[in-house]
Amino acid sequence: MAKRELVIGFDADDTLWHNETIFERVHERYRALLGQYHDAATVDRTLFETEMRNLDRYGYGVKGFTLSAIETAIQLTAGKIRAEEIQQLIHLCHEMLAHPVELLDGVTDTLAQLAPAHPLILITKGDLRDQERKVAKSGLAPHFRHVEIVSEKSQAVYAGILRRHDIAPERFLMVGNSVKSDILPVLALGGAGAYVPYHILWAAERVEEPSPETGRFYRLKSLRELPELVKMLA
Amino acid sequence: MAKRELVIGFDADDTLWHNETIFERVHERYRALLGQYHDAATVDRTLFETEMRNLDRYGYGVKGFTLSAIETAIQLTAGKIRAEEIQQLIHLCHEMLAHPVELLDGVTDTLAQLAPAHPLILITKGDLRDQERKVAKSGLAPHFRHVEIVSEKSQAVYAGILRRHDIAPERFLMVGNSVKSDILPVLALGGAGAYVPYHILWAAERVEEPSPETGRFYRLKSLRELPELVKMLA
Repeated sequence: MAKRELVIGFDADDTLWHNETIFERVHERYRALLGQYHDAATVDRTLFETEMRNLDRYGYGVKGFTLSAIETAIQLTAGKIRAEEIQQLIHLCHEMLAHPVELLDGVTDTLAQLAPAHPLILITKGDLRDQERKVAKSGLAPHFRHVEIVSEKSQAVYAGILRRHDIAPERFLMVGNSVKSDILPVLALGGAGAYVPYHILWAAERVEEPSPETGRFYRLKSLRELPELVKMLA
Repeated sequence: MAKRELVIGFDADDTLWHNETIFERVHERYRALLGQYHDAATVDRTLFETEMRNLDRYGYGVKGFTLSAIETAIQLTAGKIRAEEIQQLIHLCHEMLAHPVELLDGVTDTLAQLAPAHPLILITKGDLRDQERKVAKSGLAPHFRHVEIVSEKSQAVYAGILRRHDIAPERFLMVGNSVKSDILPVLALGGAGAYVPYHILWAAERVEEPSPETGRFYRLKSLRELPELVKMLA
């Protein structure tokens, strides 16, 4: 890539399209399913513990979530949950995987405005098949020069992406809703980060936000503010 | 990449390391679990049907297999399977994901012999996290210029890989144990294919073998025969 132009990386889930809202609705149904055994807080806490215990083994995504939800349901009911109820969890999994992709406000306009002048790269973590399906359903693929689906968003993974596409970190801006996954590793490499919070953040992604004085860290209210930031940085 | 050198792509599961043998052992335990309800042939056939019905939704890999195995067990027992038995299936899943990587005979020698003269690329389909873990555990990563984990091995996917790495198809040889996934799509692009059968082939991968007269199709007994083929082609 030309050495001078600003390259913009975009997270996908909860940055370009809604994701946590889908999980939130599934959590509600999960609490209802186990409601006769435990209160909502116990269900939530135990499911989260199972997810964290399995995270390294399963990685991110709907299939691993479902396996953790089945395991937790068996544990929380001391094996009394019926097979038919476990089948309901598998149905929930299928519904999540078939869910329509709902774009966030301003996404299409913003990408269409930036793509002619800047190489855009989609960088998303999770399940390969599911993320590919969401990219395809979103209709956004034509705006992106590259799509990178990774199993973890670590500093090493970002460094590998920048190296592979010959992008100097100081010419790279990453945009996303997770300070932990989208911003901190990129700042550490010498890139810039635009943090666009979503109204729900999965507990596993929660970290402290960099202070407003941190150079190259920008906090936006919406993706609609991005073109102005890009103009300033470019 | 230099335009003249032969680039060699390698499949991973059942080409570099054992995989179907692990599934085969799991199938045995699965048949035993459902043995009081159905004969082995019915169990095998129904599980395979569930896997095929879910393939587009789950993609390849251990997590999708486990979800299909749970769904099939509920179906075949008309909901009578106990939660504790479903927990056993989740344990089997964890065992599969933690299984050591056992290299096939001749793999290390062959790769060490070829890597200094030819760019080697690992091209494997399946679950991102699980395939990354197997590559890491195999100790083979240093031999490979690139590792490509894909959700499907179609002609379009191979074309994308060759384009991305600037490899002319006529300078590309793909090595693998599946005629369907490793050989036919590459032959269709104008590349060469070295088919190294493994002693078990998953039913979903079964297709007719190209006739021995097909140009650029080679059938090897073992990876140990590969350096000689490469010498002939290069």
